[in-house]
Order: sequence, then C-alpha cells, then structure tokens
Amino acid sequence: MTERPAISPTRQEDFPEWYQQVIAAADLAENSEVRGCMIIKPWGYAIWERMQRELDRRIKAAGHRNAYFPLFIPLSFLEKEAEHVEGFAKECAVVTHHRLEASEGRLVPGAPLAEPLVVRPTSETIIGAAFARWIQSYRDLPLRINQWANVVRWELRPRLFLRTSEFLWQEGHTAHQTAEEAEAEALRMLRLYEGFLQEMLALPAVAGEKTPRERFPGAVRTLTLEVLVQDRKAIQAGTSHFLGQNFARANGICFLSPEGRQEHAWTTSWGVSTRLVGTLIMAHSDDNGLALPPRVAPTQIVLLPLIRREEERAAVEEACARLVAELEEKSYAGEPLRVEIDVRPLPGGSKNWEWVKKGVPLRIEIGPREVAGGTLSVGRRDRSPRERLSLSVRQFVEGAEQILAEIQNGFWERADAFRKAHTRRIESREEFVEFFTPRDPEKPEIHGGFAELPWAGDAALEEKIQEEQRVTIRCIPLDQASERGICPFTGKPGSHWALLGKAY
Amino acid sequence: MTERPAISPTRQEDFPEWYQQVIAAADLAENSEVRGCMIIKPWGYAIWERMQRELDRRIKAAGHRNAYFPLFIPLSFLEKEAEHVEGFAKECAVVTHHRLEASEGRLVPGAPLAEPLVVRPTSETIIGAAFARWIQSYRDLPLRINQWANVVRWELRPRLFLRTSEFLWQEGHTAHQTAEEAEAEALRMLRLYEGFLQEMLALPAVAGEKTPRERFPGAVRTLTLEVLVQDRKAIQAGTSHFLGQNFARANGICFLSPEGRQEHAWTTSWGVSTRLVGTLIMAHSDDNGLALPPRVAPTQIVLLPLIRREEERAAVEEACARLVAELEEKSYAGEPLRVEIDVRPLPGGSKNWEWVKKGVPLRIEIGPREVAGGTLSVGRRDRSPRERLSLSVRQFVEGAEQILAEIQNGFWERADAFRKAHTRRIESREEFVEFFTPRDPEKPEIHGGFAELPWAGDAALEEKIQEEQRVTIRCIPLDQASERGICPFTGKPGSHWALLGKAY
Repeated sequence: MTERPAISPTRQEDFPEWYQQVIAAADLAENSEVRGCMIIKPWGYAIWERMQRELDRRIKAAGHRNAYFPLFIPLSFLEKEAEHVEGFAKECAVVTHHRLEASEGRLVPGAPLAEPLVVRPTSETIIGAAFARWIQSYRDLPLRINQWANVVRWELRPRLFLRTSEFLWQEGHTAHQTAEEAEAEALRMLRLYEGFLQEMLALPAVAGEKTPRERFPGAVRTLTLEVLVQDRKAIQAGTSHFLGQNFARANGICFLSPEGRQEHAWTTSWGVSTRLVGTLIMAHSDDNGLALPPRVAPTQIVLLPLIRREEERAAVEEACARLVAELEEKSYAGEPLRVEIDVRPLPGGSKNWEWVKKGVPLRIEIGPREVAGGTLSVGRRDRSPRERLSLSVRQFVEGAEQILAEIQNGFWERADAFRKAHTRRIESREEFVEFFTPRDPEKPEIHGGFAELPWAGDAALEEKIQEEQRVTIRCIPLDQASERGICPFTGKPGSHWALLGKAY
Repeated sequence: MTERPAISPTRQEDFPEWYQQVIAAADLAENSEVRGCMIIKPWGYAIWERMQRELDRRIKAAGHRNAYFPLFIPLSFLEKEAEHVEGFAKECAVVTHHRLEASEGRLVPGAPLAEPLVVRPTSETIIGAAFARWIQSYRDLPLRINQWANVVRWELRPRLFLRTSEFLWQEGHTAHQTAEEAEAEALRMLRLYEGFLQEMLALPAVAGEKTPRERFPGAVRTLTLEVLVQDRKAIQAGTSHFLGQNFARANGICFLSPEGRQEHAWTTSWGVSTRLVGTLIMAHSDDNGLALPPRVAPTQIVLLPLIRREEERAAVEEACARLVAELEEKSYAGEPLRVEIDVRPLPGGSKNWEWVKKGVPLRIEIGPREVAGGTLSVGRRDRSPRERLSLSVRQFVEGAEQILAEIQNGFWERADAFRKAHTRRIESREEFVEFFTPRDPEKPEIHGGFAELPWAGDAALEEKIQEEQRVTIRCIPLDQASERGICPFTGKPGSHWALLGKAY
C-alpha cells in the first residue's frame, strides 16, 4: 500500500501550489493583511536566524563592520543617480505625512512633509551620503560596511519569501581607491556567498555576470549566483555589484590620493535576502514537506517521547533528559548539537509527521521499549518517513555528528546531480525551443532547466527570446569552457558561453 | 600639571553637550540628513549587537520565539484600539503612495494607496491580528513571541540614541488564558530586563509601575525600569505592559476555554531599544569619554604595538599575535575574551587616547622594552588614562578575567552608590522644591535626583507638579517601604511611596 505523501498537491502535480503548502505545513510564514508583506513565523524566522548568524560571522571575518542607516531616503537623494532612480521608481513606498488627524470621525494623514521620503528599496544613496562625510583621504580606504535591515520594493505579484514587498536582507557597501580593488571586492563577496550557499545550504550555484540588460540600476557590473530549483527554474540567490564611480560621483565620495589628487572612490554593494529561505525550500523539499540541511536546521534532532500510560512517564522523560544532555555535549560543524524535546501530549504518529513536514534532519522516538533496551528508534529526513533505524543510545550519541554530516552531504550531492542532469549544452535554435517547451501543457512549470550556449547576440535578441520563450540570460558564467562555439541564434561565433533559463 | 580632560565641555560644564561630544569622540553615531533619524556607526552598532545577543539569549531561554511582522500597519488596524491610536497619532509616519512618477522633470509620489499605511510605531495591532488567527483553543496558550525590528515615532526634538524618529528595539508580545498569568508574565519580563541591566550594563534601576497618566496607550498596567544618570535625570530604560483584554477585544483574539467557553485572551507587550545605548553613556561615561562595562564592550582588551623603528616590528608583532592567541583561549563571563590589535601606523599616544575615548576596558601597550622584559604596560578604563600597571605577560593572561570582573563590578558599585547618594526621602513641599531647584542657574540640568515620598495625589496634581517643577512620577516602586507616611503635597496619608524625578 502506498499512502499519499504529506503535501498535496505534489511537486509533479502543481509546483507553485506545492510550494505554498510546504510553507503552510512547516508553519514558516503567511501573508499579512498588508498586500505583499509577509509574516515570518517562528520556524521560518529561526531558519533565517541560522543563515544570518553564519553569514554575519563570515562577513565580519572578511573585514566588514556592521552599522545601521535610516529607513527613510529623501527623494532628492534617490534622484542623484539617474539609472538608479529609474530602476526603483515603480516600486517605492512613499511617506508623505508625519502625523494622523481626525477628520469627520476618521483618521487621515495629517502634517505633510516638506520633502517626501522613500522607504529604502536599497541603501546606496543614503550610505553614499555618509561615505562622502567619512572618507577624506586614501587612508580612510578601503571602507567596508554591512547592514542588516528591512527594505521595501512594492510588489504587485507577491510570493512568500521569493518576492515580497518588504523583505529582510543584508547589504554590504564598500569604497576603494582603485577600480581593480573594488572589482576584486565584488568578486570576493560573490565567492563568499557561493561558499556559504554550498557549505551551509547545500545549494550549488552558477556564479556569473549579468548582461547589461539585467544589471542592478546604476551598476557597472552585476555578479550573480543562480540556483536551479526543482521545477527547473532559476533563482537569483545573491548578487554583488561593482558600481564603478557612479555612486561616488552622485554622492560626492572623494578622497585625497597618495599623490595629493582629489579622486572619486570606487564602490561596491552586495546582498542576500530572505529569498534564500524560498530558494532552500524549492531546492530541497519533497512531497512530504520541508527538508532542511542539518547546518541550517534550527533543530537538528528532535526527541519524541512515546508515553501511552502515566506510569511510563518518569522513565521515558528521564531517558530523554539524559539523552539531550549527552547530545548537547557533542558538536557538528563546530557548534553544539541543536536538540529539542517535543513534550506535547499528542499521539506519537502525528508528532512524527509534524516534524517530517518541518524538515528536522533526525527524529528520535523513545518509549518504554527503547528505555528498557537502551535503544532509540531513529528516523532520518533524507529517508522515507516510515523508515526506522534501531540504534543503541551509545551508537547514536557517538555517531550523531557523522550521520548529520552524511545527511548534509547527501543534500548537496542530490542538488548538484539535479543541476547537472538539467543543464544542457544547446547546439541549435530548435533544440533550444524544444528544451524549454513544457512536456505537459497541464504543467507549464516543468521545462528544461539551464541551457548553456555560445552567445553572440545583443539586448534586442535577449528581449525577443524572453518574449517568445520566457527565457532570459541568467548569467555569463565566470568559469568559461575553453572551446568556443557557434551562437545558435545568430550563427556567429559566440563571444562567450551564456547560461539561460526561466526564472523566478 | 593637570591637563584638560579629553571631552570638552565636561559633564559639569554642559551635560547635554558633553553627551554629544562623547558620542562623537567614540564614533558611535551621527545625525543623518533625515530629520530625527540617526546613523549608528560601527562602534555604536557593535555595542547594540552585544546587547542584542545577550538579551536574545535570555528572552529565548524564557520561552519566547522570534518572528517577524510587517513594517506597515493599515490605518484601520491602528484605529481599533481608541486609546492606542490617540497615543500614537501625532508621531506616525504615513505611507500614502507606492510609486514615483515624473512630473515637470521632477519625481513626485505616484500611485496612491487605497488605504494609507502607517510605519509601525509599535506592533500590538498587527501582531494582535495575527494572534487572532493563530489562537483557537486554550491549548494554543500561552503564546510567546518576540520581534527585533525598527520602529518609527516622529520626533520633533531628537537626541541621538535617547529620542530618535527611527529606533531599533525588541518587542515581546504574549497571550494568556488568565489575567493572573498575563500579569505575572509582564512582571517576569520586567525582572528579566532588570537582571540584564544589572549584570550586563551595570545599571541599577528602580522597578515600578507607571501612574495611569504615564501608561502605554491602551495598557491596563505599565511597568518600568527607571535609571538615574549622571545629571540626576531619570531614563526609562525598559517597559513591560499588562494589556488586559483591550487588544484582544480590539483584534478578536479569542480562545475556547477548557470549559468550552469562548473567551478573550489576556495579553502583554514589553520592549527595550537602542535608547539603552544612550542610557549606558549617560550613566557610566566620564570627562575622558565613553566607558564600557566589560560585559557589553565589543572589544575588552586592545593591544597597542609600539613600534618606533622598523627593526623592532617583527618581535613586537610576534609578541602581540602570541598574546592575542593566549587571551582568546581565556574567557570571562562564559565567553571567550574579545581582543583586538590596533596596527594602524599612528603615534602610540594618540592611539591610546582614541581607545580611552572609545571606552575599551583594558589597553595594553607592547613595545621593544616590554618584549625584552616579558612584561606588558596595562591601562584600565576605570583608572586615570595616564596610570599604567606593569605586569608580566603570565600575570596578565592568568589575571585578565579577574581584572575584567573587578572593572565590571566597579561600574556597578559606582552607579549604585550614585543612585543611593542622589535618592532622597522628601518630607515637605519646601524640601521637594529645594531638591529640584538647580544649584547653579547656569546649569539647569544639574538638580536633585530621585525623590521618594508618600503619595496621595491624583492626575491633576501630577500635572501641576510637572508644570511647576518639570518633575514627574517616574514610578510607584514595586518594592515599597513598610512604613507609611504623609504626602507632602496633600497632607493626607500616602497610599504608597512614589518615585519622582526629572526625565529624558
């Protein structure tokens, strides 16, 4: 007998709806009454906190210091960089008043502001104004700042975690003496993200550069990490921008060079957001719900005491408490194991399924039989939810680190194999169209994956491909194959290999 | 010869200006171009991060889970609780548009929102709406949530950290089955803050209840922690509110009781903010700048290599690196020591003064003489900046934890003695007036401190005292003296002792 999986519909049946259902079943987030703004619930926020803590550690180790800048940006600041404001104007939440007043028994906006304020969609302009004050001489450079903050980009078609009007992120901002140093910094931070995605989230990403059409508004170069998720679409998981002197000129970030000349600084910015939580879900979860790589799991091991009769309680609870104490002495990846006991008076089966859906790597059932035999019944999130391993307490405590490492590694292997299986070198236009044509008209979400091809086109061709196939150039990968080929669209020799795909 | 202290003016000369200068000299924060919104610079933010990390640990250990709710609150939500909206209406930043459009070559607010959104001044209403969805049965209670967030209360007379239009805080929100349980929770969290203030920030606070006049808008009871700072004014360092069923009724937070009845939940909320950084400065710093209790110092020990000639460099740098490694193996208050080397090529004297002004507890100078002798020249922030202790490396490494504990304890002792010295039991109206009359008309900031007196007045009397003396009831202390006395204002027996003072 095969039972229905825990999540309905399955990934095959309806991927977008499956995604919503995984989030609901794991209790990660929900929509709020404010259009496009989500509520991140405790389990979802705990995952974000794990990401934050580790990323913060890595960013600080790379020499950046945290600071905090205002939520509000004067309209005139945003206007300083023409491309920048054009890129964000359609998404800006605008504060126009600073009090409420009663009018005909209702509250209405009261005192108008002299100059409207924009809720930051990103902070280049307000941080740039501060940098202009802080930087005088080459001795003040490089300046490396990071901010953890909320930002707002008004979203007409929101989707939990992936596209929300308000989201949480970190944004790094640096200033340098030379173009070379700033470009190297932008690349260094992209590689930092790449390592974080690989080691913590088990997410393989293609590192590359965006075409001019897809650049961050105001940037000279935009580097990106593109992750292929299970419906074979790409998610931009992190970006890093070389801003040239554009924002330095707009904001007057100048320094006295060692040679005594006034020069504009060279700046970068880079960020990742709560979108990573959505990427994690779409990459790793299955038809039984969320599946968390152990390094990012808020709880790595959950203990489920099985108590059917009151007289069993003392022995089982004591065994659980002892096990927690022993496990918390152990560590995985340099941190103490994160263990939780679920003491709620619910049937063991429903508790077990709840933790499957929440994606916890290891579930341990302990009942009177286990206490008597000194054993544990172990369920792994990377195996079938009904599969159980009976281990002695000693075996498990000594082996937990190893099992978690194995699970973490398994996530990576599967995701990497998936990416490879769904990346194809495309030789002809026909093959390209075929690759991106849905196999099943009922499931337009299921299509090819990443297409690699020699590119000799321009922005107009990019637009045409997007219109016809809904496919875009995700990036020009940094790691380029040595051979060159013929661009299937233009018949000309490709100037470089491009990676194309459908995207979130 | 007595030199001028590092900060000018001194506390005696001009306390408010001294405060600004301490912040500038320690590079903690600055005003931004957006009125009332500050930029928290890296050293100031690092102090806030230390507070956050420890407070977050304590709040989680108390059973609360972090979550994140929208920045924006629909106007209609705020209107649900009449007192609440009245309390915040004058301070609300209002978002009225969600895009920018070009008009006569300038950008202006574009698409208007159907309903204006308020940037959260606090989140009772939006979190209440979520609680109404999440809570169905008594089994869902208690519900304990905490949020780290930015909030906005438009401020016409801003002051860095103490009163800013945008500030950072945590706000806890809980829901309970009974009034007793919710009241106990509000008190428990106040006591948690009190312990945090005492142990981490070395701040003695008077725990008490606000009079109805000073309550949080919409609360049934507001508990507060009042800290006396060096100009003898009070700062409200944290508050905890018992909200009764007011917000539950406004938001429809209902549960099915064990007896099968639909009842409104009883809720609490509580918070502390970046105002704590300002409190810390005003309580502990001196005329040489910021002084940080070791437990909250981002860097506890700074090493200052003294290299006058290039041939000295290798030996000094090697000694520093060795010392850092040894110190980082040691811990204080359960955490590894936080050590930094200042390698900048600046004169030792100016570096030394910089770290004095930044408030680092221990400054260690290491030059060729120290390397040769196996000694260190140690400066303590709780002693004169010119005082030096010569210790052997071994003595210092073994003793660092003890010295830091001594310094931490010294901060507490001084602050506690100060509070006691400037708290007076007031017997008569004349004594009250005299206590709060500035000794020197040139320095209106320097006045009495905390006045303790038996209170038998009402809100009208409170208002009169505030108008005449600029003194308010800071709180009705939770710890009440057993004897009762006569209220100096009314001549009637006091119903309880009240604590009065001038306040920020």
